[in-house]
Amino acid sequence: MKIALAQINPIIGDLDGNSLKILAFTQKAAAQGADLVVFPELCLTGYPPMDLLDIPHFIERCQSKIMEIAQQIPPNVGVLIGAPVPNPSAKGKRLFNAAVLLENGQKIAETYKMLLPTYDVFDEYRYFEPADSCAPIEFRGVKLGVHICEDMWNNEEHASYHLYDQNPIDELAQKGAQIFINLSGSPYNAKQQGSRAKLMRENCIEHKLPFLYVNQVGANTELIFDGCSLVFDAAGNPVMNLKAFAEDLQIWDSKANYPPIELAFGDNIKDMHDALVLGIRDYFHKTGAFSKVLIGLSGGIDSALTCALAVEALGADKVVGITMPSKYSSTGSVSDSDKLAQNTGIEFHNIPIPQAVAAFGEMLTPIFTGTQEGVAEENIQARTRGVTLMAISNKFNYLLLTTGNKSEMAVGYCTLYGDMNGGLSVLSDVFKMDVYRLSTYINESNGREVIPQNTIDKAPSAELKPGQRDQDSLPPYPVLDELLRLYVEERMELAQIVQKTTFDKDMVASMLRKVDLNEYKRKQSAPGLRVSGKAFGSGRRLPIVMKYKR
Amino acid sequence: MKIALAQINPIIGDLDGNSLKILAFTQKAAAQGADLVVFPELCLTGYPPMDLLDIPHFIERCQSKIMEIAQQIPPNVGVLIGAPVPNPSAKGKRLFNAAVLLENGQKIAETYKMLLPTYDVFDEYRYFEPADSCAPIEFRGVKLGVHICEDMWNNEEHASYHLYDQNPIDELAQKGAQIFINLSGSPYNAKQQGSRAKLMRENCIEHKLPFLYVNQVGANTELIFDGCSLVFDAAGNPVMNLKAFAEDLQIWDSKANYPPIELAFGDNIKDMHDALVLGIRDYFHKTGAFSKVLIGLSGGIDSALTCALAVEALGADKVVGITMPSKYSSTGSVSDSDKLAQNTGIEFHNIPIPQAVAAFGEMLTPIFTGTQEGVAEENIQARTRGVTLMAISNKFNYLLLTTGNKSEMAVGYCTLYGDMNGGLSVLSDVFKMDVYRLSTYINESNGREVIPQNTIDKAPSAELKPGQRDQDSLPPYPVLDELLRLYVEERMELAQIVQKTTFDKDMVASMLRKVDLNEYKRKQSAPGLRVSGKAFGSGRRLPIVMKYKR
Repeated sequence: MKIALAQINPIIGDLDGNSLKILAFTQKAAAQGADLVVFPELCLTGYPPMDLLDIPHFIERCQSKIMEIAQQIPPNVGVLIGAPVPNPSAKGKRLFNAAVLLENGQKIAETYKMLLPTYDVFDEYRYFEPADSCAPIEFRGVKLGVHICEDMWNNEEHASYHLYDQNPIDELAQKGAQIFINLSGSPYNAKQQGSRAKLMRENCIEHKLPFLYVNQVGANTELIFDGCSLVFDAAGNPVMNLKAFAEDLQIWDSKANYPPIELAFGDNIKDMHDALVLGIRDYFHKTGAFSKVLIGLSGGIDSALTCALAVEALGADKVVGITMPSKYSSTGSVSDSDKLAQNTGIEFHNIPIPQAVAAFGEMLTPIFTGTQEGVAEENIQARTRGVTLMAISNKFNYLLLTTGNKSEMAVGYCTLYGDMNGGLSVLSDVFKMDVYRLSTYINESNGREVIPQNTIDKAPSAELKPGQRDQDSLPPYPVLDELLRLYVEERMELAQIVQKTTFDKDMVASMLRKVDLNEYKRKQSAPGLRVSGKAFGSGRRLPIVMKYKR
Repeated sequence: MKIALAQINPIIGDLDGNSLKILAFTQKAAAQGADLVVFPELCLTGYPPMDLLDIPHFIERCQSKIMEIAQQIPPNVGVLIGAPVPNPSAKGKRLFNAAVLLENGQKIAETYKMLLPTYDVFDEYRYFEPADSCAPIEFRGVKLGVHICEDMWNNEEHASYHLYDQNPIDELAQKGAQIFINLSGSPYNAKQQGSRAKLMRENCIEHKLPFLYVNQVGANTELIFDGCSLVFDAAGNPVMNLKAFAEDLQIWDSKANYPPIELAFGDNIKDMHDALVLGIRDYFHKTGAFSKVLIGLSGGIDSALTCALAVEALGADKVVGITMPSKYSSTGSVSDSDKLAQNTGIEFHNIPIPQAVAAFGEMLTPIFTGTQEGVAEENIQARTRGVTLMAISNKFNYLLLTTGNKSEMAVGYCTLYGDMNGGLSVLSDVFKMDVYRLSTYINESNGREVIPQNTIDKAPSAELKPGQRDQDSLPPYPVLDELLRLYVEERMELAQIVQKTTFDKDMVASMLRKVDLNEYKRKQSAPGLRVSGKAFGSGRRLPIVMKYKR
């Protein structure tokens, strides 16, 4: 049997567009002799469809779309798609997360997801009833062990948050499955690809069956799907891998012998780079609402990296940079930004802000008289820049990209309604040290200076008061990043972090307190591209008003 | 048996403070002869504790706090508290949502929630394993039908989103329960009180048992708990009701005869008013981070109502109003705000904005030359006000209250980083016509003009360009509110709304499109007080990048 792995990039809710894509990939696969074409989880709606699933009309349209697809596919090709289908029972959640097999105008089989991830960024039990059991789908004499994403993850070593009572993989094997087929919507993070591969390999070895894994690709607001669909043979060797961060179609023949291939995974900076580029590109093109992207360039490394990534995602002609010097800006603030604009070829403007800052100062004099200059005055500068950028964004229909990194967002070293302004936060899940690694990677992979070396070399500064340096308020970034990683991603407590790192306890305590206190800022932040296992955003839900003391 | 209903207002995560409150209420109840004191669901952590539940150390501290409470309660009094407890099984979610019975230094029984709401604002399956079954807890010879919140809601008429497979109320009755006791964390919305009462009444009549219902009170960021704990007798008559929107303690004696009382529920404006006042008060006091609240006063009704509510919540000495006239502001903008300040007795300042607006105009001239004035220029005004308010907020540590209403937030008739600035959005779940009703209610209940009559009478305007009126861009508010209610709260589609209302199809379609397009603004909005069954915020999760076409 020839099975096509159709790794597509759907748009959330775009039932018409996604259906056309399913048909186009099916036709291409059929032309290459495929008996069966396998698409990712919920490929009809895109993943995650969120509360669109609560709209009765949306579900009805999904059902009619499924039947339209069935009627439009070529004859004698099976098409396995992921879609929400109604739960006929009066009890339980109203939907199943289903894999639906179509052939010759008919729905010929369907199976439902048993294990519903409801943690981190996943809310599946909000919508779906878990299936009680599963069984292989027989297709042309072969028992297909069809299951959906999390269904393969009930494994002591790899379960992200907890184990489930059931194990669909084992159940499918016991019921005679001959090939495992997993339809996935599994988002990228730095460690995910390696975990997936290890898990599949173990399942193949345990059950002596081949494993086909078809993942969604593309970015949907904060979640970035890497694709990287895979085939393992019955001995647990990887024999086929589809593209990372791009659509792909490949055909696996159950009768052919494939030599093992090498899978190179790891916590690698190239993947993070490619994920961020796709994240920008898909946000821009899938909304279709903007003519260009706009970036405030400070001369610092975060905005320079954001700019370089945007140029790779969209091309230099779609990127506009604005430098907005104040009286505290170093000369490098303008000259390094200018250099970056020259290196990347983007449109670049210089709009000094002292005039507006002075106007606010005068307006506020009656009420501020007798007070010390401080954060209020610093924030006026950041917010004046924010207003300026949003004015340009509104005027020319540009998407403003936010440039703050994860380290800053964690401790609130950023100004709400100032430098936090924007429609998409590119680096909000990238720690500062990874900002440096990504910048170096871009210069090296381009074989030339894209991000000015001076931007990489100089000490980070917000330049909101004379002689200001990040390091005056924060520990060195290698220290800050490590303690934040332990706190945010590993969920360690103060005592555990101090024990593990030997960092100063008061310093750590002060940083953790900043993380907690700045929940209110992050609540109002732009959606950010997720590249770690625990990003700020929909996967981390902490109360704003709370008093948990350590 | 004398059972105390202890309706407390906990702070999320404040294990020390909440424990002290549990002990204080227990002592008071014991002094009045109570055999058993019943507290609300998750009263130890406050509801909802959100991802604090994912922190191992937090759960450990909850367990030691439970035992501390057990050891500190007076002898021979049972105390029934709600708390998270670990699931000892290696499989399933790691916690149970438990009711724990303490007496004489010991944990003497516990029971776990079976029905876990995972819809709208509720995420319980994110953290908790549902219990498979339940049984009464025997205490001093009485079989107590203890269950938790949603456990009583599996009823065809009242189930909010779907039915569950199990019915804990029936199961407890079958197993010999003699009294139903429900520990709740049930947030207020306009229809909730009536539904709860009807449901309890039906359960009493069906099973011929009395029903004690103990609900949390207080606001935790967006959710406002009304309290309104209740006792029904075995014939289904309400015989005791605790305060709305305030802590309370009452004792029910199983041996006494209580005459039925009258419960007056309904979609009433007084409750919405009291909910909003409590929402402001608890946000302010529970964060403990601010010295006063700050409100930008436009002369319009939204900011006037927000101001009046803040004065009721905190007192006039804690409220500061700022009027910020531009060249497009009517004279009423300042004079009506001044009148409001006089009527309420708040501190009031006038900071004209033309200077900063002109500065932005000049700064942007090189890049804006040749373009038409439009939304970009309008937004500069709103954002200049936003910067001004945030400067004052930062300088004096004032909490900025956002004043936009639900109708505006729905269609995006508001400026991101401008009038949307603030730490708490007071009216974001209040439709415009309810803004009028609440304003009239405040004036009537005070027996004098608090909100200036001119503010109530004049046509709403954003005053961002000459002669601007809301009604130039939007349908009349009675029409807009009704179509938004059907779309957002009833989840109806275009065709259904047009059929039900006979509103113009193009107008409705245009408004629904605005609702969808403005998801990105709401993503970055301040948390808002929830007073309806479907508020913008954590209970409504729609994709930002999506293309569902109607």
